[in-house]
Amino acid sequence: MPSNKLKISDIGEKRLIKRLLSQSQKSIPHSPFFKSFFNNNSLKSLEDDAAILTMGDQYLVITSDLLFQPSHFPPEMSPLEMGMKSVVVNLSDLAAMGARPLGIIMSMGLPPDLPLEDFDLLVEGILKTCENYDIALLGGDTNQTDEITLCGTALGMVDPEKLLMKSGAREGDLVAVTGSLGSAAAGFEVLLSDELVMDALNLKEKDKILKNALQPIARVEESIKLAENKATSCTDITDGLVSEMGEIIAASDQKIGIRFYEDKIPTRPILDVVARISGKNSREMVLYYGEDFELLFTINPQDFSSLQGEIEVHAIGEVTSSGRIEMIDKDGKTNILVPRGYEHLHKS
Amino acid sequence: MPSNKLKISDIGEKRLIKRLLSQSQKSIPHSPFFKSFFNNNSLKSLEDDAAILTMGDQYLVITSDLLFQPSHFPPEMSPLEMGMKSVVVNLSDLAAMGARPLGIIMSMGLPPDLPLEDFDLLVEGILKTCENYDIALLGGDTNQTDEITLCGTALGMVDPEKLLMKSGAREGDLVAVTGSLGSAAAGFEVLLSDELVMDALNLKEKDKILKNALQPIARVEESIKLAENKATSCTDITDGLVSEMGEIIAASDQKIGIRFYEDKIPTRPILDVVARISGKNSREMVLYYGEDFELLFTINPQDFSSLQGEIEVHAIGEVTSSGRIEMIDKDGKTNILVPRGYEHLHKS
Repeated sequence: MPSNKLKISDIGEKRLIKRLLSQSQKSIPHSPFFKSFFNNNSLKSLEDDAAILTMGDQYLVITSDLLFQPSHFPPEMSPLEMGMKSVVVNLSDLAAMGARPLGIIMSMGLPPDLPLEDFDLLVEGILKTCENYDIALLGGDTNQTDEITLCGTALGMVDPEKLLMKSGAREGDLVAVTGSLGSAAAGFEVLLSDELVMDALNLKEKDKILKNALQPIARVEESIKLAENKATSCTDITDGLVSEMGEIIAASDQKIGIRFYEDKIPTRPILDVVARISGKNSREMVLYYGEDFELLFTINPQDFSSLQGEIEVHAIGEVTSSGRIEMIDKDGKTNILVPRGYEHLHKS
Repeated sequence: MPSNKLKISDIGEKRLIKRLLSQSQKSIPHSPFFKSFFNNNSLKSLEDDAAILTMGDQYLVITSDLLFQPSHFPPEMSPLEMGMKSVVVNLSDLAAMGARPLGIIMSMGLPPDLPLEDFDLLVEGILKTCENYDIALLGGDTNQTDEITLCGTALGMVDPEKLLMKSGAREGDLVAVTGSLGSAAAGFEVLLSDELVMDALNLKEKDKILKNALQPIARVEESIKLAENKATSCTDITDGLVSEMGEIIAASDQKIGIRFYEDKIPTRPILDVVARISGKNSREMVLYYGEDFELLFTINPQDFSSLQGEIEVHAIGEVTSSGRIEMIDKDGKTNILVPRGYEHLHKS
């Protein structure tokens, strides 16, 4: 093959998905059967990581995520934690839509030499997480692969008027998050760092910060509250804060921007400790690392007030009409930021 | 790790799934929200490669299949055909349930050095097949993997009283299939065999037989007719005829068996030609190879008569109360067969 041929790594995951979706939008069936389940949001949601179908007076929301051991599971992650994460990432995608989860189907690719003990732990992780979120494991099958591959498909329901999407943010809305950012990044740094260096952390701190990376949480109940309190747009922070802000801006049908304040972003004190020990920049960890699975949303300031008593939320900025992402840093200076989150398939 | 530890390949895929399902049945949520979507068949369908939820007066059927390049795509399969197959295997699972398909979500794992051209062909194969079956590509995402991994999740609808399952066969029912068996097996043999040997086949024959392996068809319309005509049980033949018969017997809550007649099984004349050239046993190819994606079903003899005018169907035997699979061979002798279809994760 001549070397001048383009590879998918040359164009990156996000453009690849756009390429896929632009082609799929051309071929929507016209049958009355199909149309009775299809709605305007079915097409629009192709850009949210979810599919939407009308079922009676409700929307069915379906998400699917493929996790592949070398990319998504650090070597330190136990089979139990892999099972847990495979459910959580899907529930987080449902949470980004305001949907109440019903259940999950898990297609597992497994290497033949996987110890049966590990398989049982993987299943235990899946089932334990299903129980924690009160959903069912609705189906599952196994296939032979070289590395553990977990493809979960989660199903949830939402009232059409409560559906949250990446689109919908309006100038003047507050921009907010449901919890601390950078904590998963700190956990991954601890995993990657020299053990001796990290012994500077006490055991309890270390355990807690590792959990942020190895045992993420999906903001399911928070998402339902956001939907009830009329959040105007929402996404989960898997690819980093700035990247997700870029998604919300891009999904809007108006020219909007986001201005946020660095010192308003909630972080845990340990983040700075880990950054110092590991020689990493804590700002980078907060802005560009992903995997926190907190929700990033926009909301009318009045609706935000009524939300504050109900769940943990932190306003970090506001929606502008600038078309840009502006960060007012700790010194009061304005920085223009360009989305660059974690992206698979990019050239390294 | 001590060598006496059990690996998953020691127990095989089917027992692995049973292990998974036996554990998942314990943890069904009790919330009223969940119960409004759950029905008796939701639990039962765990054995049918599909999940079922109540949506109004209909059942939503969801299937998910993970295809992994080294296991499911022969080297000769083009990216276009990989895309096609990833949709067809899921539609075939829906067809086994009598469900009318609505759409599919495709999670793709792709190696970074995949030519963009191949990605476009893969997507074209997916979309072309969606168009052929009049369904929508409802969503999709891409991830980085070492080998092409396609995890499709298909959604379909069926009237509760028309739902087909592996369970439900009754003594006295006819056992039937929707088309020729062994054709995919013959195609795979042609792919695997020495080119010079296979040159004995003329080009047109060769093309046709290769298509059976590389471009399988899902029996979607046939399945809807089976459901309308009260088939009592149904499955698609992915793992070989005898293996699927074993599944229908095992799924029944009565002690049933199946007696079938070798000479009644529809096969194409080319099967014997390929068997002769490749030195393989054509009976083995018909009984134990899978991937034909024809439907195997049971039906009351009267209902079968009314079906005959509508679609291609071939009665090959009857449901007995023997608890066994008996084949009356071409010489009139009775053979007791033991299910052994293609199974992943088995020790080779």
